[in-house]
Amino acid sequence: MTKYKHSFCIPVTMTSREEKASRMFGCSERERALFEAGVKMGTVYHQFVGTPVSSYNVAELEKTIEHSVMVQPFVESATVNIKINMNCEKKDAYDYVSLKGEMIDAVVRIRVNGTAVTAEMRYLEELEYPLMFVSEVSQ
Amino acid sequence: MTKYKHSFCIPVTMTSREEKASRMFGCSERERALFEAGVKMGTVYHQFVGTPVSSYNVAELEKTIEHSVMVQPFVESATVNIKINMNCEKKDAYDYVSLKGEMIDAVVRIRVNGTAVTAEMRYLEELEYPLMFVSEVSQ
Amino acid sequence: MTKYKHSFCIPVTMTSREEKASRMFGCSERERALFEAGVKMGTVYHQFVGTPVSSYNVAELEKTIEHSVMVQPFVESATVNIKINMNCEKKDAYDYVSLKGEMIDAVVRIRVNGTAVTAEMRYLEELEYPLMFVSEVSQ
Amino acid sequence: MTKYKHSFCIPVTMTSREEKASRMFGCSERERALFEAGVKMGTVYHQFVGTPVSSYNVAELEKTIEHSVMVQPFVESATVNIKINMNCEKKDAYDYVSLKGEMIDAVVRIRVNGTAVTAEMRYLEELEYPLMFVSEVSQ
Repeated sequence: MTKYKHSFCIPVTMTSREEKASRMFGCSERERALFEAGVKMGTVYHQFVGTPVSSYNVAELEKTIEHSVMVQPFVESATVNIKINMNCEKKDAYDYVSLKGEMIDAVVRIRVNGTAVTAEMRYLEELEYPLMFVSEVSQ
Repeated sequence: MTKYKHSFCIPVTMTSREEKASRMFGCSERERALFEAGVKMGTVYHQFVGTPVSSYNVAELEKTIEHSVMVQPFVESATVNIKINMNCEKKDAYDYVSLKGEMIDAVVRIRVNGTAVTAEMRYLEELEYPLMFVSEVSQ
Repeated sequence: MTKYKHSFCIPVTMTSREEKASRMFGCSERERALFEAGVKMGTVYHQFVGTPVSSYNVAELEKTIEHSVMVQPFVESATVNIKINMNCEKKDAYDYVSLKGEMIDAVVRIRVNGTAVTAEMRYLEELEYPLMFVSEVSQ
Repeated sequence: MTKYKHSFCIPVTMTSREEKASRMFGCSERERALFEAGVKMGTVYHQFVGTPVSSYNVAELEKTIEHSVMVQPFVESATVNIKINMNCEKKDAYDYVSLKGEMIDAVVRIRVNGTAVTAEMRYLEELEYPLMFVSEVSQ
Protein backbone atom coordinates (compact mmCIF):
# COMPACT_ATOMS: atom_id res chain seq x y z
CA MET A 1 0.00 0.00 0.00
CA THR A 2 3.00 2.28 -0.45
CA LYS A 3 1.14 4.43 -2.89
CA TYR A 4 -1.35 5.67 -0.35
CA LYS A 5 0.80 5.94 2.72
CA HIS A 6 0.73 9.71 2.98
CA SER A 7 -2.88 10.16 2.13
CA PHE A 8 -4.61 7.50 4.19
CA CYS A 9 -6.45 6.65 1.00
CA ILE A 10 -7.12 2.96 1.20
CA PRO A 11 -8.96 0.66 -1.18
CA VAL A 12 -12.67 0.58 -0.63
CA THR A 13 -12.70 -3.19 -0.37
CA MET A 14 -10.25 -3.49 2.50
CA THR A 15 -12.45 -3.29 5.52
CA SER A 16 -15.79 -4.47 6.77
CA ARG A 17 -16.76 -0.94 7.82
CA GLU A 18 -16.18 0.13 4.28
CA GLU A 19 -18.31 -2.70 2.95
CA LYS A 20 -21.15 -1.62 5.20
CA ALA A 21 -20.77 2.00 4.17
CA SER A 22 -20.73 1.12 0.47
CA ARG A 23 -24.06 -0.64 0.77
CA MET A 24 -25.67 2.67 1.74
CA PHE A 25 -24.82 4.27 -1.60
CA GLY A 26 -27.44 4.23 -4.33
CA CYS A 27 -25.04 5.29 -7.07
CA SER A 28 -21.99 4.09 -8.99
CA GLU A 29 -18.46 4.16 -7.59
CA ARG A 30 -17.61 6.94 -10.02
CA GLU A 31 -20.56 8.97 -8.79
CA ARG A 32 -19.55 8.35 -5.22
CA ALA A 33 -16.11 9.79 -5.93
CA LEU A 34 -17.78 13.01 -7.12
CA PHE A 35 -19.91 13.17 -3.99
CA GLU A 36 -16.88 12.64 -1.75
CA ALA A 37 -15.06 15.45 -3.57
CA GLY A 38 -17.93 17.80 -2.78
CA VAL A 39 -17.90 16.85 0.90
CA LYS A 40 -14.21 17.74 1.16
CA MET A 41 -14.73 21.13 -0.49
CA GLY A 42 -17.52 21.88 1.97
CA THR A 43 -15.16 20.90 4.79
CA VAL A 44 -12.37 23.22 3.66
CA TYR A 45 -14.75 26.15 3.46
CA HIS A 46 -17.09 25.75 6.39
CA GLN A 47 -14.66 24.39 8.95
CA PHE A 48 -11.96 26.98 8.47
CA VAL A 49 -13.59 30.22 7.26
CA GLY A 50 -13.37 32.59 10.23
CA THR A 51 -9.94 31.44 11.45
CA PRO A 52 -7.66 34.34 12.47
CA VAL A 53 -4.82 34.54 9.95
CA SER A 54 -1.81 36.76 9.31
CA SER A 55 1.62 36.31 7.75
CA TYR A 56 2.59 34.70 11.08
CA ASN A 57 0.41 31.61 10.74
CA VAL A 58 -0.73 31.48 7.12
CA ALA A 59 1.71 28.81 5.90
CA GLU A 60 0.93 26.58 8.87
CA LEU A 61 -2.81 27.05 8.45
CA GLU A 62 -2.57 26.01 4.80
CA LYS A 63 -0.85 22.76 5.81
CA THR A 64 -3.35 22.11 8.58
CA ILE A 65 -6.29 22.51 6.23
CA GLU A 66 -4.63 20.17 3.73
CA HIS A 67 -3.93 17.53 6.34
CA SER A 68 -7.33 17.81 8.01
CA VAL A 69 -8.92 17.05 4.66
CA MET A 70 -6.49 14.18 4.04
CA VAL A 71 -7.64 12.56 7.27
CA GLN A 72 -11.09 12.16 5.72
CA PRO A 73 -11.93 9.12 3.59
CA PHE A 74 -10.69 8.72 0.00
CA VAL A 75 -8.45 11.78 -0.24
CA GLU A 76 -5.30 11.21 -2.27
CA SER A 77 -3.93 14.74 -2.03
CA ALA A 78 -4.94 18.24 -0.98
CA THR A 79 -3.31 21.58 -1.74
CA VAL A 80 -4.42 24.83 -0.16
CA ASN A 81 -3.18 28.35 -0.84
CA ILE A 82 -4.40 31.30 1.18
CA LYS A 83 -4.03 34.73 -0.40
CA ILE A 84 -3.44 37.45 2.16
CA ASN A 85 -1.99 40.88 1.54
CA MET A 86 0.13 41.39 4.60
CA ASN A 87 3.67 42.21 5.41
CA CYS A 88 5.67 40.20 7.89
CA GLU A 89 5.75 43.08 10.31
CA LYS A 90 2.62 43.30 12.40
CA LYS A 91 1.81 46.97 12.88
CA ASP A 92 -0.79 46.75 15.64
CA ALA A 93 -2.93 44.28 17.51
CA TYR A 94 -5.64 44.37 14.82
CA ASP A 95 -3.29 43.61 11.92
CA TYR A 96 -4.73 40.26 10.94
CA VAL A 97 -7.83 39.03 9.18
CA SER A 98 -10.39 36.25 9.44
CA LEU A 99 -10.09 33.63 6.75
CA LYS A 100 -12.64 34.26 4.02
CA GLY A 101 -13.72 31.94 1.20
CA GLU A 102 -12.46 34.50 -1.30
CA MET A 103 -8.91 34.02 -0.02
CA ILE A 104 -8.82 30.24 -0.55
CA ASP A 105 -7.38 28.37 -3.52
CA ALA A 106 -7.77 24.64 -2.99
CA VAL A 107 -7.27 21.50 -5.03
CA VAL A 108 -8.38 18.14 -3.65
CA ARG A 109 -7.87 14.81 -5.38
CA ILE A 110 -10.21 11.96 -4.46
CA ARG A 111 -9.80 8.31 -5.35
CA VAL A 112 -12.51 5.69 -4.92
CA ASN A 113 -10.99 2.50 -6.29
CA GLY A 114 -10.56 3.10 -10.02
CA THR A 115 -11.99 6.61 -10.20
CA ALA A 116 -10.01 9.77 -9.53
CA VAL A 117 -11.71 13.15 -9.21
CA THR A 118 -9.97 16.52 -9.00
CA ALA A 119 -12.02 19.28 -7.41
CA GLU A 120 -11.00 22.90 -6.99
CA MET A 121 -12.07 26.00 -5.12
CA ARG A 122 -11.11 29.36 -6.60
CA TYR A 123 -12.41 32.88 -6.31
CA LEU A 124 -13.56 33.96 -9.78
CA GLU A 125 -13.53 37.72 -10.28
CA GLU A 126 -16.12 37.62 -13.06
CA LEU A 127 -18.51 35.70 -10.82
CA GLU A 128 -17.58 37.55 -7.63
CA TYR A 129 -17.89 34.16 -6.05
CA PRO A 130 -15.55 31.51 -4.61
CA LEU A 131 -16.55 28.68 -6.94
CA MET A 132 -16.11 25.01 -6.08
CA PHE A 133 -15.91 22.91 -9.21
CA VAL A 134 -14.84 19.54 -10.61
CA SER A 135 -11.92 20.01 -12.98
CA GLU A 136 -11.27 16.38 -13.91
CA VAL A 137 -12.70 12.89 -13.61
CA SER A 138 -10.59 9.97 -14.76
CA GLN A 139 -10.83 6.22 -14.67
CA MET B 1 -40.65 28.79 -12.00
CA THR B 2 -43.21 28.39 -9.22
CA LYS B 3 -41.85 25.00 -8.43
CA TYR B 4 -38.59 26.37 -7.11
CA LYS B 5 -39.77 29.46 -5.31
CA HIS B 6 -39.07 28.21 -1.82
CA SER B 7 -35.79 26.60 -2.61
CA PHE B 8 -34.05 29.21 -4.73
CA CYS B 9 -33.24 26.39 -7.07
CA ILE B 10 -33.16 27.97 -10.50
CA PRO B 11 -32.40 26.47 -13.90
CA VAL B 12 -28.73 26.39 -14.70
CA THR B 13 -29.26 28.14 -18.01
CA MET B 14 -30.93 31.23 -16.61
CA THR B 15 -28.04 33.50 -15.88
CA SER B 16 -24.74 34.56 -17.32
CA ARG B 17 -22.99 33.91 -14.02
CA GLU B 18 -24.22 30.38 -14.19
CA GLU B 19 -22.96 29.99 -17.74
CA LYS B 20 -19.51 31.13 -16.66
CA ALA B 21 -19.55 28.79 -13.68
CA SER B 22 -20.64 25.82 -15.81
CA ARG B 23 -17.66 26.27 -18.10
CA MET B 24 -15.35 25.53 -15.16
CA PHE B 25 -16.72 22.02 -14.74
CA GLY B 26 -14.89 19.14 -16.40
CA CYS B 27 -17.68 16.65 -15.88
CA SER B 28 -21.26 15.93 -16.90
CA GLU B 29 -24.27 17.71 -15.47
CA ARG B 30 -25.22 14.53 -13.64
CA GLU B 31 -21.79 14.33 -12.09
CA ARG B 32 -21.97 17.96 -11.10
CA ALA B 33 -25.21 17.28 -9.23
CA LEU B 34 -23.38 14.63 -7.18
CA PHE B 35 -20.55 17.03 -6.41
CA GLU B 36 -23.00 19.74 -5.33
CA ALA B 37 -24.73 17.26 -3.02
CA GLY B 38 -21.42 16.55 -1.33
CA VAL B 39 -20.69 20.24 -0.83
CA LYS B 40 -24.00 20.70 0.96
CA MET B 41 -23.37 17.76 3.28
CA GLY B 42 -19.98 19.21 4.18
CA THR B 43 -21.70 22.52 4.90
CA VAL B 44 -24.27 21.00 7.26
CA TYR B 45 -21.57 19.24 9.22
CA HIS B 46 -18.67 21.66 9.36
CA GLN B 47 -20.60 24.92 9.68
CA PHE B 48 -22.88 23.85 12.49
CA VAL B 49 -21.09 21.18 14.56
CA GLY B 50 -20.17 22.92 17.82
CA THR B 51 -23.35 25.03 18.07
CA PRO B 52 -24.82 25.12 21.61
CA VAL B 53 -28.11 23.25 21.56
CA SER B 54 -30.78 22.24 24.06
CA SER B 55 -34.50 21.59 23.93
CA TYR B 56 -34.90 25.37 23.95
CA ASN B 57 -33.39 26.00 20.51
CA VAL B 58 -33.21 22.61 18.79
CA ALA B 59 -36.27 23.00 16.54
CA GLU B 60 -35.17 26.44 15.44
CA LEU B 61 -31.61 25.28 14.79
CA GLU B 62 -32.90 22.46 12.57
CA LYS B 63 -34.83 24.97 10.46
CA THR B 64 -31.87 27.33 10.26
CA ILE B 65 -29.55 24.58 9.03
CA GLU B 66 -32.14 23.56 6.43
CA HIS B 67 -32.59 27.10 5.19
CA SER B 68 -28.88 27.93 5.21
CA VAL B 69 -28.31 24.98 2.91
CA MET B 70 -31.25 25.98 0.72
CA VAL B 71 -29.63 29.36 0.15
CA GLN B 72 -26.77 27.58 -1.62
CA PRO B 73 -26.98 26.76 -5.33
CA PHE B 74 -29.12 23.90 -6.69
CA VAL B 75 -30.81 22.81 -3.49
CA GLU B 76 -34.42 21.74 -3.97
CA SER B 77 -35.09 20.73 -0.38
CA ALA B 78 -33.32 20.07 2.90
CA THR B 79 -34.52 18.30 6.03
CA VAL B 80 -32.54 18.20 9.26
CA ASN B 81 -33.33 16.36 12.47
CA ILE B 82 -31.19 16.77 15.55
CA LYS B 83 -31.36 14.00 18.14
CA ILE B 84 -30.89 15.26 21.67
CA ASN B 85 -31.87 13.54 24.88
CA MET B 86 -33.07 16.42 26.98
CA ASN B 87 -36.12 17.41 28.87
CA CYS B 88 -37.73 20.77 28.46
CA GLU B 89 -36.76 21.79 31.96
CA LYS B 90 -33.23 23.06 32.16
CA LYS B 91 -31.74 21.82 35.43
CA ASP B 92 -28.61 23.96 35.61
CA ALA B 93 -26.48 26.33 33.56
CA TYR B 94 -24.56 23.44 31.98
CA ASP B 95 -27.62 21.53 30.81
CA TYR B 96 -27.04 21.80 27.08
CA VAL B 97 -24.69 20.21 24.57
CA SER B 98 -22.64 21.18 21.55
CA LEU B 99 -24.02 19.89 18.28
CA LYS B 100 -22.13 16.76 17.21
CA GLY B 101 -22.17 15.00 13.85
CA GLU B 102 -23.57 11.92 15.55
CA MET B 103 -26.73 13.86 16.46
CA ILE B 104 -27.56 14.93 12.90
CA ASP B 105 -29.96 13.26 10.48
CA ALA B 106 -30.05 15.20 7.23
CA VAL B 107 -31.56 14.72 3.78
CA VAL B 108 -30.69 17.16 1.00
CA ARG B 109 -32.14 17.05 -2.49
CA ILE B 110 -30.13 18.66 -5.29
CA ARG B 111 -31.34 19.41 -8.80
CA VAL B 112 -29.06 20.44 -11.66
CA ASN B 113 -31.38 20.73 -14.65
CA GLY B 114 -32.61 17.22 -15.36
CA THR B 115 -30.70 15.41 -12.62
CA ALA B 116 -31.93 15.03 -9.07
CA VAL B 117 -29.67 13.67 -6.32
CA THR B 118 -30.75 12.76 -2.80
CA ALA B 119 -27.96 12.74 -0.23
CA GLU B 120 -28.23 11.79 3.42
CA MET B 121 -26.25 12.03 6.62
CA ARG B 122 -27.00 9.49 9.33
CA TYR B 123 -25.12 8.08 12.28
CA LEU B 124 -24.69 4.36 11.71
CA GLU B 125 -24.23 2.37 14.91
CA GLU B 126 -22.47 -0.49 13.18
CA LEU B 127 -19.93 1.91 11.69
CA GLU B 128 -19.74 4.16 14.74
CA TYR B 129 -19.61 6.92 12.19
CA PRO B 130 -21.93 9.67 10.91
CA LEU B 131 -21.99 8.58 7.28
CA MET B 132 -22.80 10.91 4.39
CA PHE B 133 -24.09 9.01 1.40
CA VAL B 134 -26.01 9.28 -1.87
CA SER B 135 -29.29 7.44 -1.58
CA GLU B 136 -30.73 8.19 -5.03
CA VAL B 137 -29.85 9.66 -8.40
CA SER B 138 -32.63 10.16 -10.94
CA GLN B 139 -32.99 11.74 -14.33
CA MET C 1 -37.10 32.32 38.98
CA THR C 2 -39.59 33.94 36.60
CA LYS C 3 -37.14 36.64 35.75
CA TYR C 4 -34.78 34.28 34.00
CA LYS C 5 -37.19 31.91 32.36
CA HIS C 6 -36.43 32.90 28.80
CA SER C 7 -32.73 33.15 29.21
CA PHE C 8 -31.84 30.03 31.13
CA CYS C 9 -29.79 32.30 33.34
CA ILE C 10 -29.89 30.73 36.76
CA PRO C 11 -28.25 31.75 40.01
CA VAL C 12 -24.74 30.43 40.43
CA THR C 13 -25.55 28.91 43.79
CA MET C 14 -28.40 26.72 42.63
CA THR C 15 -26.67 23.55 41.63
CA SER C 16 -23.86 21.33 42.71
CA ARG C 17 -22.36 21.35 39.20
CA GLU C 18 -22.20 25.09 39.43
CA GLU C 19 -20.51 24.90 42.82
CA LYS C 20 -17.85 22.64 41.40
CA ALA C 21 -17.35 24.90 38.40
CA SER C 22 -17.06 28.01 40.57
CA ARG C 23 -14.23 26.47 42.55
CA MET C 24 -12.13 26.39 39.36
CA PHE C 25 -12.20 30.17 39.01
CA GLY C 26 -9.27 32.15 40.43
CA CYS C 27 -11.01 35.50 40.13
CA SER C 28 -13.96 37.46 41.52
CA GLU C 29 -17.54 36.91 40.45
CA ARG C 30 -17.47 40.26 38.69
CA GLU C 31 -14.38 39.22 36.76
CA ARG C 32 -15.98 35.94 35.86
CA ALA C 33 -18.92 37.79 34.35
CA LEU C 34 -16.49 39.63 32.06
CA PHE C 35 -14.82 36.39 31.04
CA GLU C 36 -18.19 34.77 30.28
CA ALA C 37 -19.12 37.76 28.12
CA GLY C 38 -15.98 37.25 26.07
CA VAL C 39 -16.70 33.56 25.57
CA LYS C 40 -20.13 34.36 24.16
CA MET C 41 -18.73 36.93 21.72
CA GLY C 42 -16.20 34.36 20.50
CA THR C 43 -19.07 31.92 20.02
CA VAL C 44 -21.16 34.31 17.93
CA TYR C 45 -18.23 35.02 15.64
CA HIS C 46 -16.45 31.71 15.25
CA GLN C 47 -19.44 29.39 15.20
CA PHE C 48 -21.46 31.26 12.63
CA VAL C 49 -19.06 33.14 10.34
CA GLY C 50 -19.20 31.27 7.02
CA THR C 51 -22.93 30.45 7.16
CA PRO C 52 -24.71 30.96 3.80
CA VAL C 53 -27.09 33.90 4.16
CA SER C 54 -29.46 35.87 1.94
CA SER C 55 -32.65 37.83 2.47
CA TYR C 56 -34.39 34.44 2.56
CA ASN C 57 -32.85 33.24 5.83
CA VAL C 58 -31.27 36.29 7.45
CA ALA C 59 -33.99 37.00 10.03
CA GLU C 60 -34.11 33.35 11.08
CA LEU C 61 -30.32 33.14 11.32
CA GLU C 62 -30.26 36.19 13.60
CA LYS C 63 -32.72 34.51 15.96
CA THR C 64 -30.82 31.24 15.88
CA ILE C 65 -27.54 32.93 16.80
CA GLU C 66 -29.29 34.77 19.64
CA HIS C 67 -30.87 31.61 20.98
CA SER C 68 -27.73 29.48 20.59
CA VAL C 69 -25.88 31.98 22.75
CA MET C 70 -28.73 32.06 25.27
CA VAL C 71 -28.40 28.31 25.73
CA GLN C 72 -24.91 28.91 27.15
CA PRO C 73 -24.41 29.66 30.85
CA PHE C 74 -25.20 33.07 32.38
CA VAL C 75 -26.73 34.77 29.34
CA GLU C 76 -29.61 37.08 30.18
CA SER C 77 -30.26 38.35 26.68
CA ALA C 78 -28.73 38.37 23.20
CA THR C 79 -29.54 40.53 20.19
CA VAL C 80 -28.02 39.95 16.76
CA ASN C 81 -28.42 42.03 13.62
CA ILE C 82 -26.92 40.94 10.33
CA LYS C 83 -26.37 43.63 7.72
CA ILE C 84 -26.76 42.34 4.18
CA ASN C 85 -27.40 44.37 1.08
CA MET C 86 -29.77 42.17 -0.81
CA ASN C 87 -33.16 42.41 -2.33
CA CYS C 88 -35.83 39.87 -1.71
CA GLU C 89 -35.67 38.63 -5.26
CA LYS C 90 -32.88 36.17 -5.82
CA LYS C 91 -31.41 36.83 -9.27
CA ASP C 92 -29.33 33.69 -9.71
CA ALA C 93 -28.00 30.67 -7.85
CA TYR C 94 -25.00 32.62 -6.55
CA ASP C 95 -27.01 35.50 -5.12
CA TYR C 96 -26.15 34.98 -1.45
CA VAL C 97 -23.15 35.54 0.74
CA SER C 98 -21.26 33.85 3.55
CA LEU C 99 -21.70 35.48 6.92
CA LYS C 100 -18.72 37.69 7.70
CA GLY C 101 -17.77 39.28 11.02
CA GLU C 102 -18.11 42.69 9.42
CA MET C 103 -21.83 42.06 8.90
CA ILE C 104 -22.62 41.28 12.55
CA ASP C 105 -23.97 43.66 15.18
CA ALA C 106 -24.41 41.82 18.46
CA VAL C 107 -25.26 42.74 22.04
CA VAL C 108 -25.05 40.09 24.76
CA ARG C 109 -25.96 40.66 28.39
CA ILE C 110 -24.40 38.36 30.98
CA ARG C 111 -25.41 38.03 34.63
CA VAL C 112 -23.37 36.18 37.24
CA ASN C 113 -25.30 36.67 40.46
CA GLY C 114 -25.08 40.37 41.24
CA THR C 115 -22.95 41.45 38.27
CA ALA C 116 -24.35 42.31 34.86
CA VAL C 117 -22.06 42.83 31.87
CA THR C 118 -23.10 44.14 28.46
CA ALA C 119 -20.77 43.19 25.61
CA GLU C 120 -21.08 44.26 21.99
CA MET C 121 -19.67 43.39 18.61
CA ARG C 122 -19.75 46.07 15.95
CA TYR C 123 -17.81 46.75 12.77
CA LEU C 124 -16.01 50.06 13.23
CA GLU C 125 -15.21 51.82 9.96
CA GLU C 126 -12.36 53.81 11.44
CA LEU C 127 -10.71 50.63 12.69
CA GLU C 128 -11.68 48.52 9.67
CA TYR C 129 -12.28 45.84 12.25
CA PRO C 130 -15.29 44.08 13.82
CA LEU C 131 -14.56 45.06 17.42
CA MET C 132 -15.83 43.12 20.42
CA PHE C 133 -16.02 45.31 23.51
CA VAL C 134 -17.55 45.68 26.96
CA SER C 135 -19.96 48.59 26.99
CA GLU C 136 -21.18 48.35 30.59
CA VAL C 137 -20.54 46.59 33.88
CA SER C 138 -23.02 47.07 36.69
CA GLN C 139 -23.56 45.65 40.14
CA MET D 1 9.35 45.06 22.85
CA THR D 2 11.47 41.93 22.33
CA LYS D 3 9.42 40.15 24.93
CA TYR D 4 6.35 40.05 22.74
CA LYS D 5 7.87 39.37 19.38
CA HIS D 6 6.52 35.85 19.03
CA SER D 7 3.12 36.58 20.39
CA PHE D 8 2.18 39.74 18.54
CA CYS D 9 1.18 41.11 21.91
CA ILE D 10 1.86 44.81 21.74
CA PRO D 11 1.27 47.58 24.26
CA VAL D 12 -2.19 49.04 24.14
CA THR D 13 -0.87 52.55 23.81
CA MET D 14 1.20 51.99 20.70
CA THR D 15 -1.23 52.66 17.91
CA SER D 16 -4.03 54.98 17.01
CA ARG D 17 -6.30 52.08 16.13
CA GLU D 18 -5.79 50.77 19.61
CA GLU D 19 -6.60 54.17 21.11
CA LYS D 20 -9.87 54.24 19.20
CA ALA D 21 -10.71 50.70 20.25
CA SER D 22 -9.95 51.43 23.91
CA ARG D 23 -12.44 54.28 23.94
CA MET D 24 -15.23 51.80 23.22
CA PHE D 25 -14.65 49.93 26.47
CA GLY D 26 -16.77 50.85 29.48
CA CYS D 27 -14.64 48.95 31.96
CA SER D 28 -11.19 48.91 33.51
CA GLU D 29 -8.10 47.59 31.74
CA ARG D 30 -8.06 44.65 34.12
CA GLU D 31 -11.66 43.84 33.25
CA ARG D 32 -10.87 44.13 29.57
CA ALA D 33 -8.13 41.53 29.95
CA LEU D 34 -10.72 39.11 31.36
CA PHE D 35 -13.09 39.79 28.48
CA GLU D 36 -10.32 39.24 25.93
CA ALA D 37 -9.46 35.92 27.60
CA GLY D 38 -13.05 34.80 27.17
CA VAL D 39 -13.08 35.74 23.49
CA LYS D 40 -10.02 33.59 22.84
CA MET D 41 -11.55 30.59 24.61
CA GLY D 42 -14.67 30.95 22.47
CA THR D 43 -12.43 31.05 19.40
CA VAL D 44 -10.57 27.86 20.28
CA TYR D 45 -13.82 25.99 20.79
CA HIS D 46 -16.15 27.27 18.11
CA GLN D 47 -13.67 27.70 15.28
CA PHE D 48 -12.07 24.29 15.53
CA VAL D 49 -14.62 21.85 16.96
CA GLY D 50 -15.60 19.63 14.04
CA THR D 51 -12.14 19.48 12.43
CA PRO D 52 -11.19 15.97 11.24
CA VAL D 53 -8.35 14.71 13.43
CA SER D 54 -6.31 11.53 13.80
CA SER D 55 -2.81 10.68 14.98
CA TYR D 56 -1.66 11.87 11.53
CA ASN D 57 -2.54 15.55 12.01
CA VAL D 58 -3.16 16.01 15.74
CA ALA D 59 0.20 17.60 16.65
CA GLU D 60 -0.03 20.01 13.74
CA LEU D 61 -3.62 20.92 14.55
CA GLU D 62 -2.63 21.73 18.15
CA LYS D 63 0.04 24.15 16.88
CA THR D 64 -2.34 25.72 14.39
CA ILE D 65 -4.97 26.37 17.05
CA GLU D 66 -2.31 27.90 19.31
CA HIS D 67 -0.99 30.15 16.58
CA SER D 68 -4.41 31.17 15.30
CA VAL D 69 -5.24 32.39 18.79
CA MET D 70 -1.90 34.15 19.08
CA VAL D 71 -2.72 36.16 15.96
CA GLN D 72 -5.60 37.74 17.87
CA PRO D 73 -5.05 40.85 20.03
CA PHE D 74 -3.37 40.70 23.46
CA VAL D 75 -2.37 37.03 23.50
CA GLU D 76 0.97 36.36 25.16
CA SER D 77 0.93 32.59 24.86
CA ALA D 78 -1.39 29.71 23.98
CA THR D 79 -1.01 25.99 24.62
CA VAL D 80 -3.39 23.39 23.24
CA ASN D 81 -3.44 19.66 23.84
CA ILE D 82 -5.85 17.38 22.04
CA LYS D 83 -6.59 14.04 23.63
CA ILE D 84 -7.28 11.33 21.09
CA ASN D 85 -7.10 7.61 21.63
CA MET D 86 -5.64 6.43 18.39
CA ASN D 87 -2.74 4.42 17.22
CA CYS D 88 -0.46 5.59 14.49
CA GLU D 89 -1.69 2.92 12.13
CA LYS D 90 -4.89 3.88 10.39
CA LYS D 91 -7.03 0.77 10.09
CA ASP D 92 -9.64 1.98 7.64
CA ALA D 93 -10.95 5.09 5.92
CA TYR D 94 -13.18 5.94 8.88
CA ASP D 95 -10.44 5.73 11.50
CA TYR D 96 -10.44 9.37 12.56
CA VAL D 97 -12.69 11.61 14.63
CA SER D 98 -14.08 15.11 14.58
CA LEU D 99 -12.55 17.41 17.17
CA LYS D 100 -14.86 17.69 20.18
CA GLY D 101 -14.69 20.17 23.04
CA GLU D 102 -14.21 17.26 25.44
CA MET D 103 -10.89 16.47 23.77
CA ILE D 104 -9.38 19.94 24.20
CA ASP D 105 -7.06 21.10 26.96
CA ALA D 106 -6.12 24.73 26.41
CA VAL D 107 -4.29 27.44 28.33
CA VAL D 108 -4.25 31.00 27.00
CA ARG D 109 -2.39 33.88 28.62
CA ILE D 110 -3.63 37.40 27.89
CA ARG D 111 -1.83 40.64 28.67
CA VAL D 112 -3.44 44.07 28.47
CA ASN D 113 -0.73 46.46 29.62
CA GLY D 114 -0.14 45.66 33.29
CA THR D 115 -2.73 42.91 33.69
CA ALA D 116 -2.10 39.26 32.88
CA VAL D 117 -4.93 36.73 32.79
CA THR D 118 -4.56 32.98 32.47
CA ALA D 119 -7.62 31.17 31.15
CA GLU D 120 -8.05 27.45 30.70
CA MET D 121 -10.36 24.99 29.04
CA ARG D 122 -10.52 21.48 30.46
CA TYR D 123 -13.03 18.65 30.39
CA LEU D 124 -14.11 18.00 33.96
CA GLU D 125 -15.40 14.48 34.54
CA GLU D 126 -17.45 15.45 37.58
CA LEU D 127 -19.23 18.15 35.57
CA GLU D 128 -19.37 16.15 32.34
CA TYR D 129 -18.59 19.45 30.73
CA PRO D 130 -15.62 21.10 28.99
CA LEU D 131 -15.27 24.05 31.37
CA MET D 132 -13.64 27.33 30.40
CA PHE D 133 -12.36 29.18 33.45
CA VAL D 134 -9.99 31.88 34.66
CA SER D 135 -7.20 30.34 36.70
CA GLU D 136 -5.20 33.47 37.50
CA VAL D 137 -5.29 37.25 37.28
CA SER D 138 -2.14 39.18 38.14
CA GLN D 139 -1.01 42.75 38.01
